[in-house]
Amino acid sequence: MSELRAVMSALEAGFDDYIEAIRTAIRIPSVSKTGQGLDEMAAWLVTQLQLLGAEATLEEGQIAPIVFGSLRSPGAKRTLLFYDLYDVQPADQQHWVSPPFAAEISRDGKLIGRGAFNSKGPLIGFLNVLRAFNKAGVELPVNLVFVIEGEEEIGSPSLEPFLRKRADLLRDCDAAFIPYLGTNAAGKTIVRLGFKGLMMLKLGVRGGEWGGPAERDIHAMHSGWLASPANELVSALASLQSRDGKLSVEGIASGLDPDPDDQALLADAASSFDKQAWLTELGARRFKYDAGPEDLLRHLLFDSTLNIDGMWVGDTPPGVEPPTHLAGHANAVLDLRLVPGMTVEATANALRRHLDLHGFGHVELEVTSAYPASKTSVREPVVDALLKSCRRHTNDLTVYPIHAGAAPMHLFTEVLGIPYAFGGVGHGANAHAPNEYLDVASMRDFMAATADFLFEFGAH
Amino acid sequence: MSELRAVMSALEAGFDDYIEAIRTAIRIPSVSKTGQGLDEMAAWLVTQLQLLGAEATLEEGQIAPIVFGSLRSPGAKRTLLFYDLYDVQPADQQHWVSPPFAAEISRDGKLIGRGAFNSKGPLIGFLNVLRAFNKAGVELPVNLVFVIEGEEEIGSPSLEPFLRKRADLLRDCDAAFIPYLGTNAAGKTIVRLGFKGLMMLKLGVRGGEWGGPAERDIHAMHSGWLASPANELVSALASLQSRDGKLSVEGIASGLDPDPDDQALLADAASSFDKQAWLTELGARRFKYDAGPEDLLRHLLFDSTLNIDGMWVGDTPPGVEPPTHLAGHANAVLDLRLVPGMTVEATANALRRHLDLHGFGHVELEVTSAYPASKTSVREPVVDALLKSCRRHTNDLTVYPIHAGAAPMHLFTEVLGIPYAFGGVGHGANAHAPNEYLDVASMRDFMAATADFLFEFGAH
Repeated sequence: MSELRAVMSALEAGFDDYIEAIRTAIRIPSVSKTGQGLDEMAAWLVTQLQLLGAEATLEEGQIAPIVFGSLRSPGAKRTLLFYDLYDVQPADQQHWVSPPFAAEISRDGKLIGRGAFNSKGPLIGFLNVLRAFNKAGVELPVNLVFVIEGEEEIGSPSLEPFLRKRADLLRDCDAAFIPYLGTNAAGKTIVRLGFKGLMMLKLGVRGGEWGGPAERDIHAMHSGWLASPANELVSALASLQSRDGKLSVEGIASGLDPDPDDQALLADAASSFDKQAWLTELGARRFKYDAGPEDLLRHLLFDSTLNIDGMWVGDTPPGVEPPTHLAGHANAVLDLRLVPGMTVEATANALRRHLDLHGFGHVELEVTSAYPASKTSVREPVVDALLKSCRRHTNDLTVYPIHAGAAPMHLFTEVLGIPYAFGGVGHGANAHAPNEYLDVASMRDFMAATADFLFEFGAH
Repeated sequence: MSELRAVMSALEAGFDDYIEAIRTAIRIPSVSKTGQGLDEMAAWLVTQLQLLGAEATLEEGQIAPIVFGSLRSPGAKRTLLFYDLYDVQPADQQHWVSPPFAAEISRDGKLIGRGAFNSKGPLIGFLNVLRAFNKAGVELPVNLVFVIEGEEEIGSPSLEPFLRKRADLLRDCDAAFIPYLGTNAAGKTIVRLGFKGLMMLKLGVRGGEWGGPAERDIHAMHSGWLASPANELVSALASLQSRDGKLSVEGIASGLDPDPDDQALLADAASSFDKQAWLTELGARRFKYDAGPEDLLRHLLFDSTLNIDGMWVGDTPPGVEPPTHLAGHANAVLDLRLVPGMTVEATANALRRHLDLHGFGHVELEVTSAYPASKTSVREPVVDALLKSCRRHTNDLTVYPIHAGAAPMHLFTEVLGIPYAFGGVGHGANAHAPNEYLDVASMRDFMAATADFLFEFGAH
């Protein structure tokens, strides 16, 4: 039996255990926005790595430790830096069909839970593959270095300092790898060659010298002669983007024109674009542009976006009748997604300048976290290995030049100077949303393709 | 001793008891927006009226009973319809120096509590005056009919049906009277000859056929190609008014040009306008217009206003970090204040038409309650009696042609066809806001002037 077939057999034999391991991880709620369960989750991961024979320790992070480990393989020539996250988004303000941290499996074979898709499914799925190598008695084809952080969902504040501290060691890695359940509901697998950047912003208006109620909320009848912080916030937000959500800030590109390589990838992706499958997966009826596939994909991938995550006038919770008042403060939390070429500093400066120039000098702007976009080349060996191995486990694979989602992968390409690959087959959905899930059966493909990838990259 | 002096002596002798009665009423939280304590408060009022020798019953309201009573005086020729409210605004989402329903008295003589100013202070203050007549053995100079509702702070949905049902009886009243603590922090007493109208509105955007996330909140990365309900709400709100909060809706007057009588009253009011005293009372640093006193007052009194009371994206409470999501719904609660001449129906139609014409057909608009403005003449006997009696208890009285606040007084002038007077001396502040209070010492003036008013109107 070949080594590959031995590992595949072990994956098959242990499949139920491997799914249980994912459920166990989901049942440890590790919510970086609240701080819940982060230490517990990190300690659990260290134990898992040690059980695989790896060295593993916890390195200090701002609010969550970073799991740092290594697993050497005697005959391996290449070293892969495995990066993933063990934190998840909050779930308690949402309505789920089953409790978000119960990890229940629905009758149609969905493992439902916060983190199932983003990212405990692929994280534990990868560790499962390593267990299968162990079980099959097959040497790993690559050396592995593990960096698993618990602050990704709050903008990864500790990752860059950590990578810089360990740069001497980490720069020796040949490439970084981030697993992902890249198959959508229609069965199409997409591999993305980069990530947008992300800035988390707070906008706030508080009555003061400029006007409005400066000491307390007051009766709404005074809106005839006193300025409204709520209306100022609305006006400021409306000034930042057009009706269709295109950024309208001087000095911030509303999008990037793809270069010829990216344009070719876009055209190829558009040729197999299934509009209805996308809408079904998103739970949407129509896109905001009446455009063809290539234009739609370009908007998704190459537009910078400013999205309102939360907005409040005064202190009234949703569903509660507010006082009929001129509230002294109004606030919003936003995420701005940066395309390649935009720097964090220039973008922050442009936002502040826009507000000041448009008479919103009294609107407070706080950048709570930020990192730029990053892109990799389709010709990198690690990308080539990923695409080859994925194609052996799916007939329907598309390459996107970049991901609409954000991740701080510029830290690998810029800080460490190593390429990275991101992706995998297997299906999950509803990241950051209620009823996040992974398709249990598809984890067979995910784990098999990942094992295949390790052989492929090790042989490069 | 004259009857007036006998009543004044009784008011003085019983003063502490009378303040305690106000505190007792404040300690019954009767919040119409939540339904809390309304029945208890209504029952307590019936008992108070019965102790005064009045007939009193509870008439059914939509969520709170209406206290309906009458107190005949054998020698009186005139009948006064006493109107007030026993409900209050919510207070639990605000920060107070002492608990809002504890009715504590501060070291500087402020009785602090929700309803102290709006309107349990003047309501119980009026009943105290009747107690003093009893105590002094003085016949009331007028017959009284009591209509005290518990739904004013939610737009008085039951008042009009009740008044129409009892119209035959109520039309025989000579005038209506609504007491008020009309003295501001600077010692100036203002009597207003009318009220703006009020429409409570809900604006909501939910993803659907028009676009946006139609089935659930989704990851914020999709804002590049999916519409955002939050951004639609912001755009719709921004379209309804200008930066300075002037309504910009076709078919809705942004304000009313005062007629010559009102202009004269405005000019007189402006002559004694103390800008700094107003700003101090409002806890504000500047008005939104750099204008003279007459213009400022015209904005306050004759502008229609649209104020955002509450606004939410998704279901995240204030102070909680929201998911980085494209939320499927966004909502706002607003109050629109109508000036005389604006009808509820035409205003609602104009709002809907505006939204439709500006591409916001998918923005849901709900009018949850509404009534128009009303104005009375300075030459009405009941107004004349109020002004005369107030002037005997203050040297600084100004007449405003209308109130910036709203109350459904059109029901008296239009439905019953009787004039009304609204006002009184005595100081309180922070209606609908934290640390609402009345000045304890000033209740002496309030009660004395009110007794004086009853004699004055009875003698007319």
